[in-house]
Amino acid sequence: MIDLKMQTQMANAIRVLSIDAVEKAKSGHPGLPMGTADIATTLFTQVLRFDPSAPHWPNRDRFVLSAGHGSMLLYSLLFLLGYEDMTLEAIENFRQLGSAAAGHPEYGHAAGIETTTGPLGQGIATAVGMALAERLMNAQFGSDLIDHRTFVLCGDGDLMEGISHEAISIAGHLNLSRMIVLYDDNHISIDGPTSLADSTDTLKRFEAAGWAATRIDGYDIAEILKTIEWAETTGKPTLIACRTVIGFGSPKKAGTAAAHGAPLGAEEVAAARASYGWTAGPFEVPAEILEAWRAAGQRSVDARKEWERRYRALPADERAEFDRRIRGDLPAGFDEAIRAYKARLSADKPNVASRKSSEMALEVVNAVVPEMIGGSADLTHSNLTRTKSQKGVVPGDYSGTFVNWGIREHGMAAAMNGIALHGGLIPYSGGFLIFSDYCRPSIRLAALMGIRVIHVFTHDSIGLGEDGPTHQPVEHLASLRAIPNTLVLRPADAVEVAEAWQLALEHRTGPSLLALSRQNLPTLRTEHVDENLSARGAYEIRPASGEAKVSIFATGSEVAIAVAAKALLDEAGWPTRIVSVPSFELFEKQSDEYKASVLGTAPVKVAVEAAIRMGWDRFIGDGPFIGMSSFGASAPIEVLYKHFGITAEAVADAAKARAAKLGL
Amino acid sequence: MIDLKMQTQMANAIRVLSIDAVEKAKSGHPGLPMGTADIATTLFTQVLRFDPSAPHWPNRDRFVLSAGHGSMLLYSLLFLLGYEDMTLEAIENFRQLGSAAAGHPEYGHAAGIETTTGPLGQGIATAVGMALAERLMNAQFGSDLIDHRTFVLCGDGDLMEGISHEAISIAGHLNLSRMIVLYDDNHISIDGPTSLADSTDTLKRFEAAGWAATRIDGYDIAEILKTIEWAETTGKPTLIACRTVIGFGSPKKAGTAAAHGAPLGAEEVAAARASYGWTAGPFEVPAEILEAWRAAGQRSVDARKEWERRYRALPADERAEFDRRIRGDLPAGFDEAIRAYKARLSADKPNVASRKSSEMALEVVNAVVPEMIGGSADLTHSNLTRTKSQKGVVPGDYSGTFVNWGIREHGMAAAMNGIALHGGLIPYSGGFLIFSDYCRPSIRLAALMGIRVIHVFTHDSIGLGEDGPTHQPVEHLASLRAIPNTLVLRPADAVEVAEAWQLALEHRTGPSLLALSRQNLPTLRTEHVDENLSARGAYEIRPASGEAKVSIFATGSEVAIAVAAKALLDEAGWPTRIVSVPSFELFEKQSDEYKASVLGTAPVKVAVEAAIRMGWDRFIGDGPFIGMSSFGASAPIEVLYKHFGITAEAVADAAKARAAKLGL
Repeated sequence: MIDLKMQTQMANAIRVLSIDAVEKAKSGHPGLPMGTADIATTLFTQVLRFDPSAPHWPNRDRFVLSAGHGSMLLYSLLFLLGYEDMTLEAIENFRQLGSAAAGHPEYGHAAGIETTTGPLGQGIATAVGMALAERLMNAQFGSDLIDHRTFVLCGDGDLMEGISHEAISIAGHLNLSRMIVLYDDNHISIDGPTSLADSTDTLKRFEAAGWAATRIDGYDIAEILKTIEWAETTGKPTLIACRTVIGFGSPKKAGTAAAHGAPLGAEEVAAARASYGWTAGPFEVPAEILEAWRAAGQRSVDARKEWERRYRALPADERAEFDRRIRGDLPAGFDEAIRAYKARLSADKPNVASRKSSEMALEVVNAVVPEMIGGSADLTHSNLTRTKSQKGVVPGDYSGTFVNWGIREHGMAAAMNGIALHGGLIPYSGGFLIFSDYCRPSIRLAALMGIRVIHVFTHDSIGLGEDGPTHQPVEHLASLRAIPNTLVLRPADAVEVAEAWQLALEHRTGPSLLALSRQNLPTLRTEHVDENLSARGAYEIRPASGEAKVSIFATGSEVAIAVAAKALLDEAGWPTRIVSVPSFELFEKQSDEYKASVLGTAPVKVAVEAAIRMGWDRFIGDGPFIGMSSFGASAPIEVLYKHFGITAEAVADAAKARAAKLGL
Repeated sequence: MIDLKMQTQMANAIRVLSIDAVEKAKSGHPGLPMGTADIATTLFTQVLRFDPSAPHWPNRDRFVLSAGHGSMLLYSLLFLLGYEDMTLEAIENFRQLGSAAAGHPEYGHAAGIETTTGPLGQGIATAVGMALAERLMNAQFGSDLIDHRTFVLCGDGDLMEGISHEAISIAGHLNLSRMIVLYDDNHISIDGPTSLADSTDTLKRFEAAGWAATRIDGYDIAEILKTIEWAETTGKPTLIACRTVIGFGSPKKAGTAAAHGAPLGAEEVAAARASYGWTAGPFEVPAEILEAWRAAGQRSVDARKEWERRYRALPADERAEFDRRIRGDLPAGFDEAIRAYKARLSADKPNVASRKSSEMALEVVNAVVPEMIGGSADLTHSNLTRTKSQKGVVPGDYSGTFVNWGIREHGMAAAMNGIALHGGLIPYSGGFLIFSDYCRPSIRLAALMGIRVIHVFTHDSIGLGEDGPTHQPVEHLASLRAIPNTLVLRPADAVEVAEAWQLALEHRTGPSLLALSRQNLPTLRTEHVDENLSARGAYEIRPASGEAKVSIFATGSEVAIAVAAKALLDEAGWPTRIVSVPSFELFEKQSDEYKASVLGTAPVKVAVEAAIRMGWDRFIGDGPFIGMSSFGASAPIEVLYKHFGITAEAVADAAKARAAKLGL
């Protein structure tokens, strides 16, 4: 047990490092670290199990700083505890280019940062995924290997965001009782007192979501400890609202919005240091205090070694499987399964919706990749993301691999990030493409973090028909392709769907999004090749007979329209080739030579996609584009494609008109 | 009072019309209308005040069908009550192209549809805006003119979505006690029983948000009436959870997910009709029942006429002002105020951030446009959207014109839609551009509905500096430009900011989004012209001296970089012109001649924007683009612009390299 005086000094070390870093950077958020340092110190010195020398220990407790603007709290902790990546130099370079101590915690910048936070609400929702992953892995590998807790420190902003509702209601429903949220209840947001904009009874709100909840003094260390102990006995996820004072110790700014997001200023820094009795210089931590912190960093080393013993005692095959899962490698036999399945498809030539061929592909994938965790936002039978043998994940029984996320696209996407970050599992979702808008902030974070999550977005165009413009994506392909480091795949037939699933699973450094049709699509890839042609991003799916005069570029459901247009054009004496473009991003990664060969030399270039033109100029320059330039409408599919002029005839006519314009 | 038997038959008319329409369309959602017909009948025949012959009566009670998939409930009501736009023919053509009875309720398709719904959660959140608008207009014009209620019928999907949390906590905080939500508590979602995915105590949840809440039997008409009466006395917004049975009356499908979203099938239709004792043919409503409905449609005519008398008794100037506000016309003097302000700016040449010049412009605007309702999602002092004289809107006092929305971007955007739909007010927001992702579904609905909402999105690029990639928009300009019918404005200096505000206010048929800088920008438009040059979308802001060899296209904060690049290029013997592109959408609306003249004939075309390239090929073909191709980073602004190569030198070098490539 650390004595109270030392613990206070340890907390003050966080405060002063945070103040110093913000002051030197001339920007940042000192208020949260100053306000919550005692909670964090208690947690990291007496509660959390982790080992700075083995920061990726799979069974470590997870800690998520959902209020990411208070990043200096986390950086101070990591440095003080002895995490190698977080040096004093990094902290002195807080918010400078290349520093591990970025403005907000960035996953991958330093071990110990479990997830990127900053966009409010994301941290708590991501942590729900971590807590769920812990239960899923526990069910699959047993308590000897995975048996940890997930802690979150969040602020009022996290709790005002809508995503927090989705997150806490999922966690409450699934009874993720090893999740403990410490709420920095400081009554202050950027604009002033939270009472300006909020009157929520937060405890009651969490209780309504199936959580245990209580309120404590954020500076009473004994109460903090006792309450965390209690939280572990509630049998429910637990909220502990900790009454704190933002900017604690700053004589003039404590308890006010002025402490939130700006340096305190030299005078107030001096006054705050004095209030802590802190006499060391900037960025100096007295040896005794640093030693106490470093000792605290060692307190779970024995527990980790004990875990290592259990791990080493496993049968070799079990250990190898656990290792593979944690590394994130796909199982042996995966490639071969996909190849064999593709060969079968090319022979069988199914005429099914790509959402259906996705289900067929998933039957193959899930049979060989046990780490797949599927789900749907209450559209299971529309998205077709649940394979036959998948058992549902239900409260108290986490041995299933399919999550009924409810009508919570945003919470689902964030939780999927948490599952991927936890390790050992590959999450995939089900939703309508239109509702990618609802989960965009979490998809962006997956892209920024570079983690493997897979979103199955069905009903990907006006092709969904009668539900009308509120449900018909028009701008979504472009707007998702716009996100850096995001793989958007729009496969044209069952074979490309199989290839898309292979690509998505093999794409370990960012999210993959599959855009799939509601309507049936013919198999176009009727000659089997082992190679994953979709991996090229774009490829010639139909050559011209003779020298091509027309190139048609298309994706997904419109490739079949291009094929029909080719027949019309060929017949009219315009030799036409077709390029299928399952992924813009993968195409851009090809060699210049390959790209030039795909773009081709045909003078007439046309693109067809049941979506807006944005992004297509890359392929067709100022050539004609057959697609959408407005919102859709409510009508049967065949009426809509005709109404909006997305037909083989329109493509052929546009090609001919272009040729005429070019004087061909 | 309508007798109980007739009331039941009236409800059955809704049921049968809904069943018939879904059956004929071969798609749609019969379950909700069948389940909630008695609630809706009670509401429309005994509670709501409206007049089908004056559907735009400003003081009508608003009714929002948040569970928009149950659209046939609303269409049946509108037809039965005698709304002209909703004919029996439209209903017979449910979900067919051009029918007023689209798959989901579409604002503008028929009077009586108060808002477009379908994307879950949007309706209830939009209704919060309507309820707030009612209080704001009441405070400004008095109870004689505006004094109505806002009713919502929502489903469990609405309440699972995160946006519902933001909506109900705003409504609870602002104590919008004239808002009553009827919750179709049928325990069924698409995947099956709601218990698959949810365990929320909904009443407790609403109470935690400051609402009154109770549970009733959705088929006990006396209880429904009594409870609505009680709701009007609670002094709080009120939730009434109505226990219902989805697909009520369908012998085999009632109470199951099978009734939710597909036709019942001929056999089950017959069985359901029999269970209602309904013998009339498809789409036939017995005369007696139709008469009773039409009579019910007349029950508030006297109230409306009484309102007309009060309205006519107003002093002429007050009435004219009220009329102007309801029509949505801008006040006389608005144009002149902007012109005078622009002249002042061109003389003063301020060097301020565009968020700051937006604040300056707002001081001018708000002084002459009293219908402006500002706000911010807890970033008031960053967005600078609150002008000096604006008073905050607080619980119980709605005479202010600035809303502290809290950290609720999505709820804010949806509520703004509701404010705009209500009429009499022009809502504008404040938020960071990065968080446009959080409110995208509501922005899209504003675009689809074609309503005037204005979003002020500051911190619009890596120019925000140290907060890093979680806060730096990169793909957002492209992804917002991708939304049809959305005006994205990125002004380059204080003069363009003033013009952007003018354009946004004058743009009555869709949302306008202003992307504004955190960093200072010099005034580039130093010669005053009365004309709003930004209205052209793109225009030459700096001509070449002599025949242009280089055209640089730029927006916002990068126009000043283009000006610096021009100096370098001019000096190097490359006469350069600069085109400022405040809006892609407005540019596309210009004549072909004008567009050609702006694109120009200079052989070298370069674009610079601190964002991704997508969309710029339209201006520069395959010419060089200076901007972002990855996420940003945490560092001071000057470091970032250099690091990512967005500098005058880089622009000049790219132009020269391009010229060399072209052999010039």
